[in-house]
Amino acid sequence: MQRLFRSATVVDWSQERDGATRVVDILVDGDRICRIADRLEGVSNAETLDASRFLVTPGLVNAHGHLAMTLLRGFADEVPLEVWLEKYMFPREARMTGEDIYFGTLLALAEGIMCGTTTYADMYFCEDDVARAVDEAGIRANLSTGTAASGDESRKLRDADEFFHRWNGASDGRIMASFGPHAPYTTTPDFIREIFVHAKSLGAVVQFHLHETRKEVDDFTARYGTSPIAYYARMGLFDDPPALLADHCVHMTPEDVRILRDAGAGIALNIQSNLKLGSGIPDCRLLLESGINLCIGTDGAGSNDNLDMLEELRVLGLVMKGSTRDPLRIGNERLLSMATVNGACALGFDGVGMLTEGAQADMAFWDLHDESFYPHNNPASHLIWSANSRSVDSVMVAGSWVMQHREFVHLDIEKVRFETDRRARRLAGA
Amino acid sequence: MQRLFRSATVVDWSQERDGATRVVDILVDGDRICRIADRLEGVSNAETLDASRFLVTPGLVNAHGHLAMTLLRGFADEVPLEVWLEKYMFPREARMTGEDIYFGTLLALAEGIMCGTTTYADMYFCEDDVARAVDEAGIRANLSTGTAASGDESRKLRDADEFFHRWNGASDGRIMASFGPHAPYTTTPDFIREIFVHAKSLGAVVQFHLHETRKEVDDFTARYGTSPIAYYARMGLFDDPPALLADHCVHMTPEDVRILRDAGAGIALNIQSNLKLGSGIPDCRLLLESGINLCIGTDGAGSNDNLDMLEELRVLGLVMKGSTRDPLRIGNERLLSMATVNGACALGFDGVGMLTEGAQADMAFWDLHDESFYPHNNPASHLIWSANSRSVDSVMVAGSWVMQHREFVHLDIEKVRFETDRRARRLAGA
Repeated sequence: MQRLFRSATVVDWSQERDGATRVVDILVDGDRICRIADRLEGVSNAETLDASRFLVTPGLVNAHGHLAMTLLRGFADEVPLEVWLEKYMFPREARMTGEDIYFGTLLALAEGIMCGTTTYADMYFCEDDVARAVDEAGIRANLSTGTAASGDESRKLRDADEFFHRWNGASDGRIMASFGPHAPYTTTPDFIREIFVHAKSLGAVVQFHLHETRKEVDDFTARYGTSPIAYYARMGLFDDPPALLADHCVHMTPEDVRILRDAGAGIALNIQSNLKLGSGIPDCRLLLESGINLCIGTDGAGSNDNLDMLEELRVLGLVMKGSTRDPLRIGNERLLSMATVNGACALGFDGVGMLTEGAQADMAFWDLHDESFYPHNNPASHLIWSANSRSVDSVMVAGSWVMQHREFVHLDIEKVRFETDRRARRLAGA
Repeated sequence: MQRLFRSATVVDWSQERDGATRVVDILVDGDRICRIADRLEGVSNAETLDASRFLVTPGLVNAHGHLAMTLLRGFADEVPLEVWLEKYMFPREARMTGEDIYFGTLLALAEGIMCGTTTYADMYFCEDDVARAVDEAGIRANLSTGTAASGDESRKLRDADEFFHRWNGASDGRIMASFGPHAPYTTTPDFIREIFVHAKSLGAVVQFHLHETRKEVDDFTARYGTSPIAYYARMGLFDDPPALLADHCVHMTPEDVRILRDAGAGIALNIQSNLKLGSGIPDCRLLLESGINLCIGTDGAGSNDNLDMLEELRVLGLVMKGSTRDPLRIGNERLLSMATVNGACALGFDGVGMLTEGAQADMAFWDLHDESFYPHNNPASHLIWSANSRSVDSVMVAGSWVMQHREFVHLDIEKVRFETDRRARRLAGA
């Protein structure tokens, strides 16, 4: 099936005088964008849609999170990471069933879609139930089971491997699977080695929480003599590394960053979660100058507390400018790339996160008639600095609508609301 | 006229086990809340409304801004304050007419209302046109003419005085007027003294940009030997001060803060504007521990770039936790106070910014059926950390609707959109 979008406003950074946008026609064929031009003539058999009131962008890419943690939203606002995990999250997670996780994930995807997000990273448990939700919601995701080491490493690696083979490439390629060692403080270096080698052999991505808090780095250093990243490098883990997406990376030395960059890794920054838990502010100058692939994630709603990638990208941009006292430190073009194509690349999705001919038709339609876009001085800037999810009208993934005019196409949102309320009440008790 | 709201969810910090909320009936009589109780019986002649799907809060109070700068949104994203002012803002402002400012203000108020804001501070020029817009939009504001010293100080003070007498107490008390010396670098200490003495004699508030950038403080110190605040203190300006609302205050010594606190001043923080312009991050520990009245403002949309007070309060909370690496540094109750009652007090409005019997009926109705409030673990927390303006359904000021079910009551929004687009194009040219 072909769809022709007439007169869509798209971001074009070369058009500085016209608010970094131009108006184009976009032809979608099946799951791909097949043509983009100022005016497409002679297209027959396509459903033609008037897109003249929309800013059309690539769907946003949420490069790190724990989707089902929507169930745990708002349980603990004023605690540091360690307490938050041990006292509030782990006990409730221990009571979660696969159905809880299925509905929690659907709520996260609903929120994410409402905020223009089309691709997600996930690291959690009962990951088959996450995959089921992703499949049904019609979105794109790279999923991993969060894996800790507690004496049952070989079983866990086997489970993760089976999950990988069950889901990688499923749902017409919308789902990828990856490996998810949880963190240096919940695993062992040897287990990390095993996972890295295995993932590499499969061509799989590894998602890994790294250097999130000062305490994590200090504790590891007290035990092993260096930071986790430096130690893994010394073990040779980065000599022939898998595709690594390092999450958080708040407390990094220049050497840590250099090691990851030379390993071809990406970093998924989660600025709101790090700020809220008091983990700290990353050295933005160091990260921006290093040349490493920087991506953006919301983290789980237990700590963030929403799935709003535009909010996340804005706060990151603000902190990058403010913490360096340099408003030139990060530009709009690079910032939007972090929330789109950079994340897609790090998650292993080719041709995703960009509006170009041949790319996957993953698109968000932002209503330029929303007050936040007035006056239309610079729509690309207004998207990044003024708009919010109020203006997301429609969202498409792989050429299919997942939300159209604010109505979900695949999700029974009333059921998701009812079920998440009911299940969260149960988790809160006891 | 009386209105009875049945079964509204309101924030009650003592009800920690029920998500810091309770369900009440609210009776509004004329412009005031006259009764709040679990269940009000025997109320006749009141219009009864079902508020069971809403979290009802005091309308938010935007304690610092330049409303008509919506016209200048997005003109300059990557520049520091001095360049932003001199190169991008001042030349365009020089071309603005009173009608431009009227429509720019209406757009700002529309945006603000959509984000649950009922009270505004303003400092700009053609302030009569601002007042006209405020009067028509039905909201509450304290307005001042931004006053610089350029050899015509006595005329400017006379103009400001006439503005004060024209507007203070107007629109049934919804409008207050104040004095607005722009900043230490655009005025002289003697002129500040004159304004302070005059404002004091009238019982008027003084709004004043202070210590916004490092450069401002350094330049002043190079010339006068101390920071502006310390210098004004030495001049005796704080011996018998007017009600002062100091805006920005990013670069403060403990002595600066102590001087303002002892003078009974408030501080309006504008974290997003300060971050975006690279002005820096305030010493949050110092400010929070000082006991000074902290308020929140969006600043003008030329630098922020929207009028979203919930976004502003969230980013401030995040930065307070993250920059101090202490998630306990600021709690939800105090944060919400900064965005409501603290600002109202600093702006001189009595009985505003609170939901109590006898207070002004300025209320925002947040839709608890929005995804951001699911599951309903802790609605007060979800408001602060998860929701956005998508969930603002209705807004009331002084007992009258200004927005009901997302429709503006007084504003012709289509006209505001058309006029701001047209006028901004003219300002961008030349």
